[in-house]
Amino acid sequence: MEKYPISRGVPGFRFSAVLAGIKKNTGFDLGLLLSDAPCPAAGVFTRNSIKAAPVIDCASKLKNGIAQAVLVNSGNANACTGTQGRRAASLTCESAAVLLGIYSDHVLPCSTGVIGVALPHAKIIAALPSLASGLSRTHAIAFSRSILTTDTRPKTIALREKIAGRTVHICGIAKGSGMIMPDMATMLAFIVTDAAVDKELMTSMLREETELSFNRICVDGDMSTNDSVLFMAGGKSGVRITRSSRALEPFRGMLRRVMQELALMIVRDGEGATKLLRITVCNARTDADAKRAALQVARSCLVKTAFFGEDFNWGRIIAAVGQSGAACNPERIDMHFNGIHAVRAGRAVPEIRSRLVRAMKKKEIDVTIDLGCGKRQCTVLTCDLSYDYIKINADYTT
Amino acid sequence: MEKYPISRGVPGFRFSAVLAGIKKNTGFDLGLLLSDAPCPAAGVFTRNSIKAAPVIDCASKLKNGIAQAVLVNSGNANACTGTQGRRAASLTCESAAVLLGIYSDHVLPCSTGVIGVALPHAKIIAALPSLASGLSRTHAIAFSRSILTTDTRPKTIALREKIAGRTVHICGIAKGSGMIMPDMATMLAFIVTDAAVDKELMTSMLREETELSFNRICVDGDMSTNDSVLFMAGGKSGVRITRSSRALEPFRGMLRRVMQELALMIVRDGEGATKLLRITVCNARTDADAKRAALQVARSCLVKTAFFGEDFNWGRIIAAVGQSGAACNPERIDMHFNGIHAVRAGRAVPEIRSRLVRAMKKKEIDVTIDLGCGKRQCTVLTCDLSYDYIKINADYTT
Repeated sequence: MEKYPISRGVPGFRFSAVLAGIKKNTGFDLGLLLSDAPCPAAGVFTRNSIKAAPVIDCASKLKNGIAQAVLVNSGNANACTGTQGRRAASLTCESAAVLLGIYSDHVLPCSTGVIGVALPHAKIIAALPSLASGLSRTHAIAFSRSILTTDTRPKTIALREKIAGRTVHICGIAKGSGMIMPDMATMLAFIVTDAAVDKELMTSMLREETELSFNRICVDGDMSTNDSVLFMAGGKSGVRITRSSRALEPFRGMLRRVMQELALMIVRDGEGATKLLRITVCNARTDADAKRAALQVARSCLVKTAFFGEDFNWGRIIAAVGQSGAACNPERIDMHFNGIHAVRAGRAVPEIRSRLVRAMKKKEIDVTIDLGCGKRQCTVLTCDLSYDYIKINADYTT
Repeated sequence: MEKYPISRGVPGFRFSAVLAGIKKNTGFDLGLLLSDAPCPAAGVFTRNSIKAAPVIDCASKLKNGIAQAVLVNSGNANACTGTQGRRAASLTCESAAVLLGIYSDHVLPCSTGVIGVALPHAKIIAALPSLASGLSRTHAIAFSRSILTTDTRPKTIALREKIAGRTVHICGIAKGSGMIMPDMATMLAFIVTDAAVDKELMTSMLREETELSFNRICVDGDMSTNDSVLFMAGGKSGVRITRSSRALEPFRGMLRRVMQELALMIVRDGEGATKLLRITVCNARTDADAKRAALQVARSCLVKTAFFGEDFNWGRIIAAVGQSGAACNPERIDMHFNGIHAVRAGRAVPEIRSRLVRAMKKKEIDVTIDLGCGKRQCTVLTCDLSYDYIKINADYTT
C-alpha cells in the first residue's frame, strides 16, 4: 500500500470547486464530485436527532445503494431550516442533475457551516454551470478546499495497492475541526475508490470502519447536525470486492487506513489545538468500558486544559475514568505518559517529575490508562483545549 | 422566611478555621464545624465510581444517621491516595475526636483540592489544638473561607423563620467553581439547622432537594471525586420536623432555598464565568427528557463559548438539544432569550437582531427552549466558557 498525490485522482471520478458566494471570506465554497457512471454508494450519518436537510435527503437517496455525484457547500449547514431547507436541498440536486444529464436521485447533497440560516440555493444554482465545466480528474485538491469551515487546512489522502494483479485506488477527503464528538462521524468525509465493491457490502464495511476511526475522535464533545461519511465505488479498476473474495481484506486495509488517517487529520486540526492526545484505555473489563472511559477522558475540559498548560495532572484523568462508570479499582490503575510509567497502582510514581515535565512539552502525547481488570482496549484521539478554541467559537456567526 | 447575617450562626453549632499549611497561598485551609451534642445527620455524595477517601469514610459513618462534627481541609482532595489516604482521613478524625472529647465515628472528614497527592495529615493534626480553641458560634465566615480552592468568594446563606411559634435557623456554606457537573452534588456543602429533624427523614429530604439544586448546575461537565453535601440538625429550636408534622413544608421551603441559593452562588462563581445562564427546557415529553436536554445545552462548549462571545447562536442550542436524545420536532421548537421570542417553530424570528444583540450583553441570560411535545420542564444553571477558564485550569497543580 502506498500513498500517491491526490491531484492524480481516482480513475472514474472527477472533481470541481467554485466560489458561489455562500461564505463571506474568499476561497471555494461549492464542490462537486462526479462518477463517470452510477455506482454502489453508502453513507453513515449523524445520530443527532435533529438532522440537517441534506442528511435526510442523502440517507433517503442511499436506500437503493446507488449514487453518481455529491454536491457539497460550506458556509451554511442547511440545518434547522424546515420545509424550505429540504426544498432547497432537493432543488440544487435537481438543477445539478439536469445540467449533468444524470438522475437527481443519484445526486447526494451535503452542507456544512452555520445552523439555522436559509440556504442561498439561488446562488448555488447560479454557480452550477461553472462548477460543471470545471470538472476534472485532477481537481480533488480544489474540491477538498471547498468543504472547509474553521479548518486551517484541507484533509486528504490517496492510496494505491496491487490487489489481484491490478492497481486499486482509494482517496478520502474530509473536513472538520469543531463540533467533533464521537457517536457518529461528526464531520464530512468523502471516500471514492475504483474497486468494484458489492453494494451489499458497502454499508456494513463503512459502518465498521467508521466505528474504528471517526467514532474514536473528539474535539469538543459537541455533536453536529450534519455529519456524513459518503463512500462511492466506481469499479474502473475491475477488481471486485465481495464478502468472499480474497481481495476483501487488502481492500478493507486500504479503507481503514484512509479513514483513520482522515480522523487523525481532523483531531490534529482541532479548533485551537496545540497538542494531539492519544488516549488508550487498556485491560478494561469490556469493549464498552474501554471506549466509555477513553471518551470521558478525551472530552474532559479539565484534562484538556491541563494538557494545554503542559501540566501533569493525572488526578483529573482518574476522575474522568471514574465519571465514565467503567469498571475499575482506583488502586490498580497504571498510567503511562509517552512511555513514562507515571502512575503505579493508583499512585504517582516518585522521582520522575523532571522527565514528565519534558514529556508534557511534546506536541503529541500518548496516554495509556491500564484499568487492570480485564483484557479489552480502546484508543481515542483528542486534542487540548486552548485559548484559541474560545476565540474561534466565541465569534463564529457574526 | 428572612435572611440574617451568617456571622450570628445557628444555635447549637460552633465553627472554626485556621491555616494548617496545606495550601501554598495564604488564608485558611482547615475548618471545623461542631454541634453541641451528637445529632441527626445525612449526606449525599458524588456518583463518581472513584471516590476520595473522606467520601468513603463519611458515607460509612453516616450509615447510623448521627454525627457531631465536620473536619474539612482545602488544598488537597485526599483522592486516589489508596490505603494511606484512608488511614490519613481516619487518623485526623480520631485526633480531633480525642481533642474534642467526642466519638471519632461522629467526626465527618471532607477534603477538596488536588487529586493524587498524599494528605499531609501531620500538618492537620498539629493544627487541631488551635482549631479547637478557635471554635465559636460566630466563626461561620472563617469556616466558609477555609474550604475554598479556585473559588473567588465564599458562598454562604443563613435563613430564619417562625415555625410552630418558634424561630428556626438554617445556614448553608458551600464551595465549588470548577469540576461542576450535575449527577451528584459536585462540590462541598454543609447545612446545619436548629430544627429537630427526624433521622429517617433527613436523607430522603436531602436527596430530593439535591436533585432540585446541586444536580441542576453545570460549570464544566467534569464530575469530582469529592462531592459531598452534609446536613446536620441540632434540634436546639425545639421544633420537631417529622413526615406528618405541619412544620415539614415550611422547613422544607427553608432547606430548598438554602440549597438553591448555594447552587446559584456556585455557578455565578464558575471558573472564568462572565455570564450566568438559566437554561429552561419546557413542554418536554418527560421529566427525564427535559433534564437531559437542558443539561446537554448547559454543558456544550460551543453554546458556552457563543454566550461568552455575546453571539446569538441558537443553532448550537438546537444541535445540543438534538444530541441529548430528548423527544422533539425541530420544526416545533420555540426559543426565548431574556423574554425575546427569538426562534419560532424552529426558525429565527426576523427583525429582532438589534434587540437580541442588546440582550446578549446582559450578565444574566434566561434561555427558554420550548420543545412543544409535552408538559414537563427543567431548569439548569450554567455559565459561559471564557479565556479565564482555560487560564485557571491550564496551570492548577503547579
